[in-house]
Amino acid sequence: MTPSDLFTISHRDSLGRARAGMLRLPHGTVPTPAFMPVGTHASVKGLTSDQIAATGASILLCNAFHLALRPGEDLVRELGGLHRFMNWNRPILTDSGGYQIFSLGKLFEVDDESVSFQSPVDGKRLTFTPERVVEIQEALGVDIMMPLDQPVGWPCEEDSARFAMRRSVAWLKRAVAAKKTSQVLFGIAQGSVFHDVRREGTALVLETGVPGLAVGGLAVGEGQDLMLKGLDFALRGAPAQYPVYLMGVGTPADLVEAIDRGVDMFDCVLPTRNGRTGWAWTSEGVLRIRNSVFREDARPLDPRCEGPCCRVSRAYIRHLFISGEMLGPSLLSFHNLRYYQRLVEGAREAIIEKKWHLYKMQILDRVKRIGRRVVQP
Amino acid sequence: MTPSDLFTISHRDSLGRARAGMLRLPHGTVPTPAFMPVGTHASVKGLTSDQIAATGASILLCNAFHLALRPGEDLVRELGGLHRFMNWNRPILTDSGGYQIFSLGKLFEVDDESVSFQSPVDGKRLTFTPERVVEIQEALGVDIMMPLDQPVGWPCEEDSARFAMRRSVAWLKRAVAAKKTSQVLFGIAQGSVFHDVRREGTALVLETGVPGLAVGGLAVGEGQDLMLKGLDFALRGAPAQYPVYLMGVGTPADLVEAIDRGVDMFDCVLPTRNGRTGWAWTSEGVLRIRNSVFREDARPLDPRCEGPCCRVSRAYIRHLFISGEMLGPSLLSFHNLRYYQRLVEGAREAIIEKKWHLYKMQILDRVKRIGRRVVQP
Repeated sequence: MTPSDLFTISHRDSLGRARAGMLRLPHGTVPTPAFMPVGTHASVKGLTSDQIAATGASILLCNAFHLALRPGEDLVRELGGLHRFMNWNRPILTDSGGYQIFSLGKLFEVDDESVSFQSPVDGKRLTFTPERVVEIQEALGVDIMMPLDQPVGWPCEEDSARFAMRRSVAWLKRAVAAKKTSQVLFGIAQGSVFHDVRREGTALVLETGVPGLAVGGLAVGEGQDLMLKGLDFALRGAPAQYPVYLMGVGTPADLVEAIDRGVDMFDCVLPTRNGRTGWAWTSEGVLRIRNSVFREDARPLDPRCEGPCCRVSRAYIRHLFISGEMLGPSLLSFHNLRYYQRLVEGAREAIIEKKWHLYKMQILDRVKRIGRRVVQP
Repeated sequence: MTPSDLFTISHRDSLGRARAGMLRLPHGTVPTPAFMPVGTHASVKGLTSDQIAATGASILLCNAFHLALRPGEDLVRELGGLHRFMNWNRPILTDSGGYQIFSLGKLFEVDDESVSFQSPVDGKRLTFTPERVVEIQEALGVDIMMPLDQPVGWPCEEDSARFAMRRSVAWLKRAVAAKKTSQVLFGIAQGSVFHDVRREGTALVLETGVPGLAVGGLAVGEGQDLMLKGLDFALRGAPAQYPVYLMGVGTPADLVEAIDRGVDMFDCVLPTRNGRTGWAWTSEGVLRIRNSVFREDARPLDPRCEGPCCRVSRAYIRHLFISGEMLGPSLLSFHNLRYYQRLVEGAREAIIEKKWHLYKMQILDRVKRIGRRVVQP
């Protein structure tokens, strides 16, 4: 499969690298830029699949590592694949779990062959190879598979970044060789924030012949400036026709900056995690809904939002949080996901209508006026 | 208001006292028999108001005591009333909170004038009078108000049952006198399971001129046989035209037995509480969804259910519970509420089609075949 079988760019910004396009996948076409809600364990926390669809999401992210551990990919395959399992009939991308395994701290051991770790589910010793991770995702039947990779944290030395990037490329080659189905396999380019490593990472990944490029290992604590620098390094040498997925990013401002640099796909836990803990994005700023200033506030969270979350008042949602009602986290998760979808829908529209630069400035200006980024709980 | 302004009986069973009717309320007409989902704090746990409506509920129960404590009835009134507050536009009945206050154990003090108690929200000493409880519900703007009453627990002496029943009637008279709006106020007849006290309780309540009769103080541990005996005593002398609400009841078998005795309205936490803890009612029996027998079960919870809960497999819902995903409790709450609504819809249809006796036998037989009642967590 070539990038052009998968991805068509229909509009480009004349100044920067922002573009609008379409990803053609077995379970449907995804307009880009696209934001993927995170449904790690085959569930976006607190939302039914109808509600996820109602946020406007056209593609969902799940996690192959978590699903292999529980309930197991064989079970999901027997039950008709991940789409049927979770009753979601639009495209799904699964992350490989590299990031999760290497976040287990001292509980993993890695060499060129494989990574072994203690299962957080039952404590059993497990080994993942690049081949095994492809096999899992083939069993799940997802639209886009991600290869096993070795990310690095932050701070990080250039040598370790290069080492991890090269091992990730070696693993990607094994993943490409192991793949038995027509499912799409993206490559993950590592390299932290180092110019040479990023350039080499992207080049080596594309040499493997994958039709899509994921930029991994960013937004791990280096801050937005360095993150964008790393992204610039990663994309500078990349041909324009590849769909680009910036993994695990980010805040609304991060998304806008990254779209401006040619990124097409995102995933992030922020909208749902912040929603569960009582934070809401709105066109007027970020609300901490438990704050007593909202006690008597009859307004919806955001007049621009059409969701069920905004057919009730801020006072009601605050009441739900103060009373410990599950509906509060669900409504704010919906709301924040809808906010993110409106953000990427607006970006796409702006690119198509040749107003991208204005749109970008408006969003960034709004974020600046709001005066603070959402503090992660 | 007379009972006939409020309630029309359209069909009666020829053998027993079962009947189908319509309750006409400001926010809509409620077909009876009716089951009211419990939304204590202005939220049915884990469900949006659209989802509650999709279960088929045509009337909802909230709790005046809890809402007065938090967020406060004045706030709810300022925000347009309880319907607007929670975005539910069908009828609402509020329980007064008598049951909740007298469940606070030694934390309350009661005399003929009022009951005072320590707020479970902030520890403040509060006093509720019958007048105050009407005032709260007038501020909430609900369709049906319940008066402050004094229930008794189980076991209980006949003298204390009589004493509490008479005090509840005295309080009801004060509630009737205090009422300033055209909202409907039901009377609550207490009397535990004692023949003479129940007869007197019902007679005294109806003498106050209220248009609806609630039977309180049952299903508090006395068991189904005694509960039904108490209900028989309470209803034997009651004229047929009053809508009858059996408070806090019960299991599917309880509902069928009570409908057979002339009850029109029910509320109970069982479907949602059991749903949250992993129990599902189905036409084939009661499922404990965490049970490993459901690990690979591709079937829906119940082939007779049309809800979103039954567009996924038992295996998927089990996975959600095992993984601690909020969606599991939400889906099972929806499912069990839909089960209860199907039960009362079926009862209504059977009464209308003159098949009530058959329907009743089928449900009771099914419950018996299933061989066990759901154990409350």
